[in-house]
Amino acid sequence: MLVVMHSHATPQQIEQVVAAIRRMGLTPHPLPGPTRTAIGITGNISVIDPRTLEVLPGVLELIRVTKPYKLASREMHEADTYVRLPYTTIGPGTFTIIAGPCAVENEEMILRTAEFLRQQGVNLMRGGAFKPRSSPYTFQGLGQAGLDILARARQRTGIGIVTELMDTENADAVQSVADIIQIGTRNMQNFSLLRRVSHSSKPVLLKRGMAATLEEWLMAAEYVMAGGNYNVVLCERGVRTFSDHSRNTLDLSVIPPAKHLSHLPILVDPSHGTGKRDYVPAMALAALAAGADGLLIEIHPDPDHALSDGAQSLNFESFRCLLSALHRLAEPLGKTIN
Amino acid sequence: MLVVMHSHATPQQIEQVVAAIRRMGLTPHPLPGPTRTAIGITGNISVIDPRTLEVLPGVLELIRVTKPYKLASREMHEADTYVRLPYTTIGPGTFTIIAGPCAVENEEMILRTAEFLRQQGVNLMRGGAFKPRSSPYTFQGLGQAGLDILARARQRTGIGIVTELMDTENADAVQSVADIIQIGTRNMQNFSLLRRVSHSSKPVLLKRGMAATLEEWLMAAEYVMAGGNYNVVLCERGVRTFSDHSRNTLDLSVIPPAKHLSHLPILVDPSHGTGKRDYVPAMALAALAAGADGLLIEIHPDPDHALSDGAQSLNFESFRCLLSALHRLAEPLGKTIN
Amino acid sequence: MLVVMHSHATPQQIEQVVAAIRRMGLTPHPLPGPTRTAIGITGNISVIDPRTLEVLPGVLELIRVTKPYKLASREMHEADTYVRLPYTTIGPGTFTIIAGPCAVENEEMILRTAEFLRQQGVNLMRGGAFKPRSSPYTFQGLGQAGLDILARARQRTGIGIVTELMDTENADAVQSVADIIQIGTRNMQNFSLLRRVSHSSKPVLLKRGMAATLEEWLMAAEYVMAGGNYNVVLCERGVRTFSDHSRNTLDLSVIPPAKHLSHLPILVDPSHGTGKRDYVPAMALAALAAGADGLLIEIHPDPDHALSDGAQSLNFESFRCLLSALHRLAEPLGKTIN
Amino acid sequence: MLVVMHSHATPQQIEQVVAAIRRMGLTPHPLPGPTRTAIGITGNISVIDPRTLEVLPGVLELIRVTKPYKLASREMHEADTYVRLPYTTIGPGTFTIIAGPCAVENEEMILRTAEFLRQQGVNLMRGGAFKPRSSPYTFQGLGQAGLDILARARQRTGIGIVTELMDTENADAVQSVADIIQIGTRNMQNFSLLRRVSHSSKPVLLKRGMAATLEEWLMAAEYVMAGGNYNVVLCERGVRTFSDHSRNTLDLSVIPPAKHLSHLPILVDPSHGTGKRDYVPAMALAALAAGADGLLIEIHPDPDHALSDGAQSLNFESFRCLLSALHRLAEPLGKTIN
Repeated sequence: MLVVMHSHATPQQIEQVVAAIRRMGLTPHPLPGPTRTAIGITGNISVIDPRTLEVLPGVLELIRVTKPYKLASREMHEADTYVRLPYTTIGPGTFTIIAGPCAVENEEMILRTAEFLRQQGVNLMRGGAFKPRSSPYTFQGLGQAGLDILARARQRTGIGIVTELMDTENADAVQSVADIIQIGTRNMQNFSLLRRVSHSSKPVLLKRGMAATLEEWLMAAEYVMAGGNYNVVLCERGVRTFSDHSRNTLDLSVIPPAKHLSHLPILVDPSHGTGKRDYVPAMALAALAAGADGLLIEIHPDPDHALSDGAQSLNFESFRCLLSALHRLAEPLGKTIN
Repeated sequence: MLVVMHSHATPQQIEQVVAAIRRMGLTPHPLPGPTRTAIGITGNISVIDPRTLEVLPGVLELIRVTKPYKLASREMHEADTYVRLPYTTIGPGTFTIIAGPCAVENEEMILRTAEFLRQQGVNLMRGGAFKPRSSPYTFQGLGQAGLDILARARQRTGIGIVTELMDTENADAVQSVADIIQIGTRNMQNFSLLRRVSHSSKPVLLKRGMAATLEEWLMAAEYVMAGGNYNVVLCERGVRTFSDHSRNTLDLSVIPPAKHLSHLPILVDPSHGTGKRDYVPAMALAALAAGADGLLIEIHPDPDHALSDGAQSLNFESFRCLLSALHRLAEPLGKTIN
Repeated sequence: MLVVMHSHATPQQIEQVVAAIRRMGLTPHPLPGPTRTAIGITGNISVIDPRTLEVLPGVLELIRVTKPYKLASREMHEADTYVRLPYTTIGPGTFTIIAGPCAVENEEMILRTAEFLRQQGVNLMRGGAFKPRSSPYTFQGLGQAGLDILARARQRTGIGIVTELMDTENADAVQSVADIIQIGTRNMQNFSLLRRVSHSSKPVLLKRGMAATLEEWLMAAEYVMAGGNYNVVLCERGVRTFSDHSRNTLDLSVIPPAKHLSHLPILVDPSHGTGKRDYVPAMALAALAAGADGLLIEIHPDPDHALSDGAQSLNFESFRCLLSALHRLAEPLGKTIN
Repeated sequence: MLVVMHSHATPQQIEQVVAAIRRMGLTPHPLPGPTRTAIGITGNISVIDPRTLEVLPGVLELIRVTKPYKLASREMHEADTYVRLPYTTIGPGTFTIIAGPCAVENEEMILRTAEFLRQQGVNLMRGGAFKPRSSPYTFQGLGQAGLDILARARQRTGIGIVTELMDTENADAVQSVADIIQIGTRNMQNFSLLRRVSHSSKPVLLKRGMAATLEEWLMAAEYVMAGGNYNVVLCERGVRTFSDHSRNTLDLSVIPPAKHLSHLPILVDPSHGTGKRDYVPAMALAALAAGADGLLIEIHPDPDHALSDGAQSLNFESFRCLLSALHRLAEPLGKTIN
């Protein structure tokens, strides 16, 4: 932490800041310069609110030096994290596909999708039983009945299940079915929910909030890890910007800095990221080339009649094409699709 | 709803779209033009996902005509909503101040603040017992003990209480103390929570999500209203933009369109909106001039030692100055501060 | 400038950074801490590109301490700047109205507008002879003929003229007519144009770029001032965000920090900021309350038939109402409308 | 164009809108629906400002149906545009590399770079003689001397030159040296400059504005094409968002919609897009996979001593590695690097 004083700051003002730092139990280090003084701070800085010093007289600005996350940080834990699942592992070297419908609509479509995915060598299926919808008047998911359908598909086909948890009430139910618990973009900072899954034995797929900085996203991961659950998988799904050519702005450029700052694996969801099925394959290939560890992607046996998000879902045939393009691209990149 | 066909769309493609609309139980109205055909749709459009039509061959784009919210809309309910509370009413003509600390820290400071506010003619106090914090390592609020303190302050001073609800678990506890239940910016689309407070008898203060459009915000209000709770108060608190001169970009320009599209009252939170106490008074006055129905504002007996957000809190003296400036400004605007 | 080293940085890496700083002719000040070392830098830092150090091995991040602008900064020049014009002065204490049509359409409407404004006590008229339009197929302004009309209106009514300069070719022509030269939002970083007006004897109204940070805006002002023209007036006109309820997001919250960091006067353009005449008066009043030094506002004798931006222009009657509301509000704020 | 009436609009209000449309020389088509009336408009809509109708009483909103650009649109011109240059062609099927330093610093480094690029099979070199810099106090480019150096490098090595034009004054000088004239992000809506290069015989590389929507970008291309210069190459270089993990947010997701809406080739600039050399290779590979037609990329013989933007420049060795990775990736994508 560094306090930068105004060039006109008086010695008294500097002394006042120094004293305030000492009162916090921290150590001030004044650094007089030709035009102004800066004051370095050492000690356990995480306990203070930096802005408290910022409003003292003579202070120009306050600069934070260390990152507030620890467990999620590569500084603290250099080696890449691999999230190990019954049939597959998510992490560098492999490129993991998680595919399936936006919502569980009925047993038949889930079984068809699970069987199709197994034939294609895909080991994880997504599908929502609880759906966060922006309108109270649209389909909200099948709830427990949807979870039961997923459980039967898992049992019948051996496919792993990724499904969203929206509230703590359903945590036990979702956890008993899911191989990975998904936390959606609107809940990235639902701290009660994060604390709940931090005690779960199941890995957590943490979608980036619509307007979350990389630091806020890693802080959300830190919540899960601080409770003891170290199996966190990040998932970029598009952010909110002025740009209106797609539903969201898929931020592939977050992948290199996320890999640089954290050891956690990162997936990309090109379906929500673009909102349009025609744009999904290009973004899926780009995610692989950009260094992502896998995809979360929407497919549907009959997208034009899907109950939600059909417009961004691939049909089976388009998905098969994409998968084969991914296989061709993975080889020169030294990755294996799984 | 309007489907705009590509200028090269074939008659077969147009016919296919017409048929798809009919299959949805809706009525298509083809409108041939000089360069392209558009197809109007009438019927109960709210049941369909517009993007389903968008991906049919020959379709250029799909344009939604009606708003998805009803109860929150001024079209359905022309008269302004007034939220009536034991000691005051929120709505046009008055300008309601809700002031208090970010977090309940101890009984003494809450009592001091409540008494000070009553002396100033302020009838509602804010204060968080449950705090959403971006780091798991910082002060998370006193929880139930904080609610108890608020309840005692209410009983002793007669001040109304505004406090945040973060999860459904604590809904009963918060509801029993609060005169207004606050839903924070990170929970604006926590639909489980919205559904829970939609069954509450207490009014709901709904903060705008950090990256929420006005429509999404009104849809969140619709969730609360659809469950039967019509006492919703909107609260603008700054949005997330590229702009880095303040903590958030306080969007005062949302007030006129919010008033135009909805009958709900709207408050402004200049404390979170700016993040810096020096900028709070100017934005508070601007909110009044812009047509807001009140303020949610942070004050603290000793901001420099606050456990959270001290840098954006006014001390009592600054608040008193602001209040008197608000009184002077309210008169020519034909409003009464309460 | 502060270089923050990685917690695992080796002594060699630290030494390498120290040496790199010395090679730049600057002085390094290593500050060893419990978990990492930071290195302060003093000297003429403005000559270096900070990111050059950022990529050295072991460097975590690089933090800039001083602002890159000098002449525009309040640190260098504490007293408020007043821009003095033949009939009025722009700066704190007064609230200056600049009103008029988006574009000069013909002599009759300009004369009518100028006479109307003079009757209302307004001393500055805006009107574009050269119009930046996003489509090459729409009305681009009358050019020199438009300037001639403005010159005649000035001569006849004594009103001051504010008009936009789009390129260096027309600099002499615009300068000979304008009392204030306007630089539009799309040209805020047209550095050739900024350099040209930096040699002009006329004040410059510098609109904020659509996606400009406050620092970039002040740097653009610095370009004008560095050439010797100290009469710069800032003008906020809305920025580009995800928010879609108005044409742009009018950022009134930039006013307090702009006043804090710079001594230059700042106006607000609520017409472009909102894009809708119904929303203009509320934002004009809010700008006054927020501490702005005046308004740039579009009015038109017959907005529904304007050649450009009619939808955001007030007619004379609405403007008169707004003006009287501004007068009522100015008094308790201790300002004079001029 | 579609005018949507308020559900409470009176027959008189509807008639008034119909009349206003007729007065504009256009044809109104009223479409009564169960809850409201909409009015379609046909005719030469490009001449009107849509917002003029929007403010008539009873109008809820106004919806534009056709795109304002024509020449840049794929609807008008289905086949892909190929920009043919002396040594290479930019367009689908090939992936064109344009590499070189941010700024021309001296003859020696330009010659070294040109020779290195020719050895690597790269046919186009970038390098700025005129530099748009946000501070007036930093290196602004060598100007005409820089152009002379580029001309000699072209003559000696046969490499094609891509260099930026910042103002109309230098148009002839830049045009005589450049094989492609670059228009920078800050000048995307410098309409005087666009008009000037619209009369040039040289192709134009049009960088996307920092906050430009895809439509505004294509409208800027339309300016160039409307003047007769059809050889426009788009270049994505990152946009301005709330996200702070990189200098800009590189928007690779604009590639599929740009290809869908326009026939123009599109390049990606991962150097400005990320601002950090470590992140450049991943984004370069992702651009190729996403369907871009090439790269604009910064390299420097000695990045740590570059006069500008060294932190985002690759050195020769890193560039060679990237190039070989691009070759490996191009093959399965059916593209040729040139």
